Amino acid sequence: MDISVLQKTRYEYKPKLPAGIAGDINAIKIEIGKPTESISDHKALKEVFKHTYGKPLAVFSKGNGSHSGEYKVGVILSGGQAPGGHNVIAGLYDGLKKGNPGSKLYGFLGGPSGLIDNKTVLFTGEIIDAYRNTGGFDIIGSGRTKIETPEQFEASLETTKKLGLDAVVIIGGDDSNTNAALLAEYFMEKGSKVQVIGCPKTIDGDLKNEHIETSFGFDTACKTYSELIGNIARDANSAKKYWHFIKLMGRAASHIALECALQTQPNVCLISEEVEKKQMSLSQIVESICVSICKRAENKDNFGVILIPEGLVEFIPEIKKLIQEINDVVAKHTEEFSNLSSYIDQQYWLSRVISHESYNVLLTLPPEFARGLLADRDPHGNVQVSLIETEKLLMQLVEKRLNKLKDEGVYKGKFSSLGHFFGYEGRCAFPSNFDADYCYSLGFNAFLLIASGLTGYLSSIKNLTAPASEWIAGGVPLTMMMNMEQRHGLKKPVIKKALVDLEGRPFKTFDLKRDIWAVKTCFLYPGSIQYFGPPEVCDIPSKTIALEHNKVI
Amino acid sequence: MDISVLQKTRYEYKPKLPAGIAGDINAIKIEIGKPTESISDHKALKEVFKHTYGKPLAVFSKGNGSHSGEYKVGVILSGGQAPGGHNVIAGLYDGLKKGNPGSKLYGFLGGPSGLIDNKTVLFTGEIIDAYRNTGGFDIIGSGRTKIETPEQFEASLETTKKLGLDAVVIIGGDDSNTNAALLAEYFMEKGSKVQVIGCPKTIDGDLKNEHIETSFGFDTACKTYSELIGNIARDANSAKKYWHFIKLMGRAASHIALECALQTQPNVCLISEEVEKKQMSLSQIVESICVSICKRAENKDNFGVILIPEGLVEFIPEIKKLIQEINDVVAKHTEEFSNLSSYIDQQYWLSRVISHESYNVLLTLPPEFARGLLADRDPHGNVQVSLIETEKLLMQLVEKRLNKLKDEGVYKGKFSSLGHFFGYEGRCAFPSNFDADYCYSLGFNAFLLIASGLTGYLSSIKNLTAPASEWIAGGVPLTMMMNMEQRHGLKKPVIKKALVDLEGRPFKTFDLKRDIWAVKTCFLYPGSIQYFGPPEVCDIPSKTIALEHNKVI
Repeated sequence: MDISVLQKTRYEYKPKLPAGIAGDINAIKIEIGKPTESISDHKALKEVFKHTYGKPLAVFSKGNGSHSGEYKVGVILSGGQAPGGHNVIAGLYDGLKKGNPGSKLYGFLGGPSGLIDNKTVLFTGEIIDAYRNTGGFDIIGSGRTKIETPEQFEASLETTKKLGLDAVVIIGGDDSNTNAALLAEYFMEKGSKVQVIGCPKTIDGDLKNEHIETSFGFDTACKTYSELIGNIARDANSAKKYWHFIKLMGRAASHIALECALQTQPNVCLISEEVEKKQMSLSQIVESICVSICKRAENKDNFGVILIPEGLVEFIPEIKKLIQEINDVVAKHTEEFSNLSSYIDQQYWLSRVISHESYNVLLTLPPEFARGLLADRDPHGNVQVSLIETEKLLMQLVEKRLNKLKDEGVYKGKFSSLGHFFGYEGRCAFPSNFDADYCYSLGFNAFLLIASGLTGYLSSIKNLTAPASEWIAGGVPLTMMMNMEQRHGLKKPVIKKALVDLEGRPFKTFDLKRDIWAVKTCFLYPGSIQYFGPPEVCDIPSKTIALEHNKVI
Repeated sequence: MDISVLQKTRYEYKPKLPAGIAGDINAIKIEIGKPTESISDHKALKEVFKHTYGKPLAVFSKGNGSHSGEYKVGVILSGGQAPGGHNVIAGLYDGLKKGNPGSKLYGFLGGPSGLIDNKTVLFTGEIIDAYRNTGGFDIIGSGRTKIETPEQFEASLETTKKLGLDAVVIIGGDDSNTNAALLAEYFMEKGSKVQVIGCPKTIDGDLKNEHIETSFGFDTACKTYSELIGNIARDANSAKKYWHFIKLMGRAASHIALECALQTQPNVCLISEEVEKKQMSLSQIVESICVSICKRAENKDNFGVILIPEGLVEFIPEIKKLIQEINDVVAKHTEEFSNLSSYIDQQYWLSRVISHESYNVLLTLPPEFARGLLADRDPHGNVQVSLIETEKLLMQLVEKRLNKLKDEGVYKGKFSSLGHFFGYEGRCAFPSNFDADYCYSLGFNAFLLIASGLTGYLSSIKNLTAPASEWIAGGVPLTMMMNMEQRHGLKKPVIKKALVDLEGRPFKTFDLKRDIWAVKTCFLYPGSIQYFGPPEVCDIPSKTIALEHNKVI
């Protein structure tokens, strides 16, 4: 297999482990806390999780403990790629083998469907070594199948029996870890001893709480996007002729946009959570962008950078309502809708089934954008926000507004714009040293949770702004992070998504500076992720987590 | 000024110089060769360059020489950004100051117009230090103004008189260096002693020949694009559900696409020069892509990566003809055309003024693409190829063709595609160590050419695949790289653009492997540019130049 020079060199990198779980595998003790409660909906969640609700927190540290049992474990990569997934598997593998060379690790192929259909690979040291400290999920592939139906749960149990598994580790985001909790409960309900452990993955950064400081992949993805934003900002500041509208991946939460803004200091960064809280209309958003453009034009700075979170449109009240209405009527009349072959037909059909108000909103949108709202839907029947070219919508509307301001004599600048979308560029980057260390620790720690006989836990590594040796490893019961939410008309147990906290330090820090950034050119150029340089260049965690831990950035 | 951690650390980097021009500034000797000839059109070029035609090659090496005169020099950044521009200026500044601390360096603001309008900044050590080893052209900005009219030439001469300049250094591509040659000639013609030296800049990599091994910026830009392509390829190989169509900057030549292909091993990489040579029609190109998709579908690999050079459409015979006809009629009837407000009007107008054949080609194109051909034109009245979404055109046409192949039972896969365009992401990246060293050497060497009394030369650093200490510094007379070409109906002297040589080793190497890449998954993941790691990761020049120098890659 041909490999790049960097890949070859990265194989040699030795991820750092927290001191509490490094060294002699039988010199690690577990401390168990008091029973826990879910965020809310205690009663309903106790009903759903009869056997696994309310377990205690667990923390590992130096001490006496035995982790040398022989285990068979299966691991799943679930959902969208995030840098560091391979290291979670490597850490888990190394932990298992360190405990007992007879232990075995299976990888389920292509995501959760690998568990349902019993499609596996048995990992060898050779396989693992070829993926250490690399990006991607290609070691076993990933998938978005949810284990939902009774048949799927049963098939999953069957697979664990056939393979003689002791545990399943699910590497995934909030949805996949909700699934992990349900699977843990199901196995106990059925008298199976198979344990289920989750690992917090998602570049979106929205799987975090008091006990999970960040999800893996967020650091690397944001650093990759910030590299590109910085490069574009420097280009803008050199050519002095374009406004760059840059859309960034991240459907529900705007953590990525906010982190990238802190790293690059663009002129404008929209935050979906703020748009929702202030109930900003599309025209108010356009206006807020035009304010920066007009002020900069007065200084002859007819260029700039604007960051837009991918999910923005779903947070703009009138568009959110429109999307919701479309989703609802399409869900109800799926076949009828799918028989409409042209946009004109779809539009006419909608005019009869959605509210007058929403239909008017649809008509005010540029046609190519309106088409996007009706285009291909995801497996859950929802609008695929990643396919909506929000950046182009804003470019068009801003230009239209500026032309009006020019007619009124308010705006005297020149406006040329370019659109970009960054998502796939960052999900499979070589993990930063931070993510490489964090993921390896998460995987190694998942083994310790298994060896400690726990199930329904999320692998947890805390104190992440300190050097890795000072990190604290442990386990958080999945039910502790859950509440009940409406899904397709039913109340379902789910791990609560962490949206951007408008009272939190990351947003407050941004808020304090953005008025200056809007007018002056304060761009920062972070450059590409470095793996070999001085620690202050290579090992620094995200600005979001630093600020959340009251560090100075 | 806030700066990033990497920027701060990069300030400390000491660019390497060729041994021949390092050390004692007065221990460098110049060797002058025999008179040279232009590539062709000797007589016509001798007419244009009465005073500067046919000068000898110059080479620097250790020996006796005096370079401690006091000079006043002005420097211009011309055209599109390329990583390393700041280092050319830093090298020039350091050379001047090393020769004589009394020497002065002015920067012309905003490109060549800074020379015409006498807009300058006088560099200080503090200014220079803030830009060492950084990307961008923001130290003085860049511009695309050409010095063309007699008034502009005269104004340029006036500026040099007002500032008391001894020399002007123009950092630019083939066009800008053609301008440098004309300016050198003009100054001599007018009895001015002001020397003009060029430096070879362009990420496109098309300013090269026997004496110029590569233009600066190509290395860094290609490495940045390859980082992103590799990340996307790994994502494709993990999710296994998308074909990524990636368009890469580079208008005339496909060097960038070819280099990125050698670095990442995509399934398909189109090379404009091959398309032109084989006179491939659009449908043949689509077919060549479908061959890979169909074969991979047989292996259940319904994913892949396709690289597309930005300028492709101009090399497809029927589209080239169409664009040429549109350019011609629009140039002839600029006002009439600009009064056509809608695409329908434009289309109708075209139906009467272009050939029947070309009009039919226009009709077969998807409307949004056809619109692109008629959209905003550059200052020279040409179609702006960077605004044409070639990647989307191909995505649409490939999908259409695959649907047909599916109906015929030939294709049984699933096809989902995503489009990307990378250009602005790489032009202002922090220069790789290679570009940082190369640019610094080019600038330092430009000073030596000035101190040696030369004019009409391009700064030249050769032997670039060896360690920097073994590089060879010298000067190449600009007229040596020129021929006469048709421009707007007139024969003009121009530096010949280097297109991809279909008989050269870079293309041949690609050609030898591409059939395997088309079917199997052979992706390489180069990762992000490293500045601090082992030399084999940090200091390696491009695969193109390595192959051109008969190195093994």
